[in-house]
Amino acid sequence: MAIKTYLKEKKELIDLFLKEYFSPNFIPPVLKGSITYSLSAGGKRIRPILCLAAHEACDGDSEDIVAFASSIELIHTYSLIHDDLPAMDNDDLRRGKPTNHKVFGEGMAILAGDGLLTEAFYMMANSLSNKNIKNTALIRAIKEIAFTAGIHGMVGGQAQDLLSENAEPDKETLSFIHRHKTGALISGSLRAGAILANCSKPSLNAITRYGENIGLAFQVIDDILDIEGSTDELGKPTGSDVRKKKMTYPSIYGLESSRKKAEELIAEAVFSIKDFSAKAEPLREIARYMLERRS
Amino acid sequence: MAIKTYLKEKKELIDLFLKEYFSPNFIPPVLKGSITYSLSAGGKRIRPILCLAAHEACDGDSEDIVAFASSIELIHTYSLIHDDLPAMDNDDLRRGKPTNHKVFGEGMAILAGDGLLTEAFYMMANSLSNKNIKNTALIRAIKEIAFTAGIHGMVGGQAQDLLSENAEPDKETLSFIHRHKTGALISGSLRAGAILANCSKPSLNAITRYGENIGLAFQVIDDILDIEGSTDELGKPTGSDVRKKKMTYPSIYGLESSRKKAEELIAEAVFSIKDFSAKAEPLREIARYMLERRS
Repeated sequence: MAIKTYLKEKKELIDLFLKEYFSPNFIPPVLKGSITYSLSAGGKRIRPILCLAAHEACDGDSEDIVAFASSIELIHTYSLIHDDLPAMDNDDLRRGKPTNHKVFGEGMAILAGDGLLTEAFYMMANSLSNKNIKNTALIRAIKEIAFTAGIHGMVGGQAQDLLSENAEPDKETLSFIHRHKTGALISGSLRAGAILANCSKPSLNAITRYGENIGLAFQVIDDILDIEGSTDELGKPTGSDVRKKKMTYPSIYGLESSRKKAEELIAEAVFSIKDFSAKAEPLREIARYMLERRS
Repeated sequence: MAIKTYLKEKKELIDLFLKEYFSPNFIPPVLKGSITYSLSAGGKRIRPILCLAAHEACDGDSEDIVAFASSIELIHTYSLIHDDLPAMDNDDLRRGKPTNHKVFGEGMAILAGDGLLTEAFYMMANSLSNKNIKNTALIRAIKEIAFTAGIHGMVGGQAQDLLSENAEPDKETLSFIHRHKTGALISGSLRAGAILANCSKPSLNAITRYGENIGLAFQVIDDILDIEGSTDELGKPTGSDVRKKKMTYPSIYGLESSRKKAEELIAEAVFSIKDFSAKAEPLREIARYMLERRS
């Protein structure tokens, strides 16, 4: 299947970039160890890949933005490290391995997260040296990531999630958490890729609708997998949402409705970019592939 | 004394900007409460003021970079919130008030820090709309802050500090911690201000030397105040470095040598910018004023 090859190739591009980026010894070894432990723990690099694919869909050359796209994985990784902390979700396992603080201690895990988040912005701004990226586009893309990763997006969603533990489930809160905690940065990754390709306003709007739909679909499917997946496939115990009394899509709407919702969102995402050329084929395929994922 | 008026006026500029920036209700109220609690806890705004003063010394108009300079206070504030956490320094008091996690809980304190750090970069990138700031300069300034606040600077220093608790004091480690944990972002604030004024390379080098010297002086004086200051003046118990067995300048070199060192560093800082015009007078005065500070 072509999309599997595409995902594999792009993942290797990101993996190689990240490995080389962190190979010199420019920071305290334990901090570097803590950072690279989580960064190389088997992430699927979905957000960077979406950034590259949106860039290509808008006629950009993805080689130009490998560093920028990789920086988003730093942000995603930091969010997982902090999210796993005892004061947050208190998780011991992530992708089948002990969580960062279990290996390096809480203090170092907090600093590794802080370091990853800050380095992401350094990595983005470093694209200044790339002559194929316009400065205006670069700053707009940085704004996009900061907006969707921070208090207006992911951090805002995490805060609401933390506040809603043990709360009575309600649709409005669930929608806020899903759109912010997961959807925002996925949408931001896509938009940043499009912005860096200097895409037109209508194209950016279409990419945005695509992003909002797959962002929400991604989280709905995550919620379903937490119930239906196997511990082996997920690398963490299933049913953890139920045990932690998390507000999830299936807990409010039921499994059947959730599956149907995911399918509708994916169809809507694909429809949003119907006017794009064949270069948007990976985006269409990634959306459809999401329905099949098991981890 | 003119410098006191200067510091007061600039502080008010930063305070007003931050207050207005966070007044709309665009994020979950508890997250906003946690962020504004620490942001308005009486910080002296030294880093933003140095950024503005360096900008002025390089013939810039500080009105143009109030947002950019204020963003550095967000980064400084996040670092204090995370530094106070139980897994780090485990402090209950900061500037005479309960620390963030004592009021809002550890999870929210972690998120408030993450949110402040991310929002800082949004705030910086938002200067895109300011026609008096060149895009190239803006990206270089963002790089500068990300470099000095992150793993190459402050976070790297924090990590080394954490690893050195209870360790045998040694001069090289102490120097690394001081230069990275405090010195880097102070120097970065000054350099960013100069870069945003499109200053010449020799001027930037001079500002850098000024920054390295006052950055180190700032930390040496901090170490001295932790021994000689009063709890009332500092807003936190004195002697906490000794109790925590922190590596400090006085613990390795003694109080008398530390005082002399601070004076030398300040003299060196002032000498570094001897070729600047009268517009650098605030920078010179701030350096001298540091020797008098009691908190």
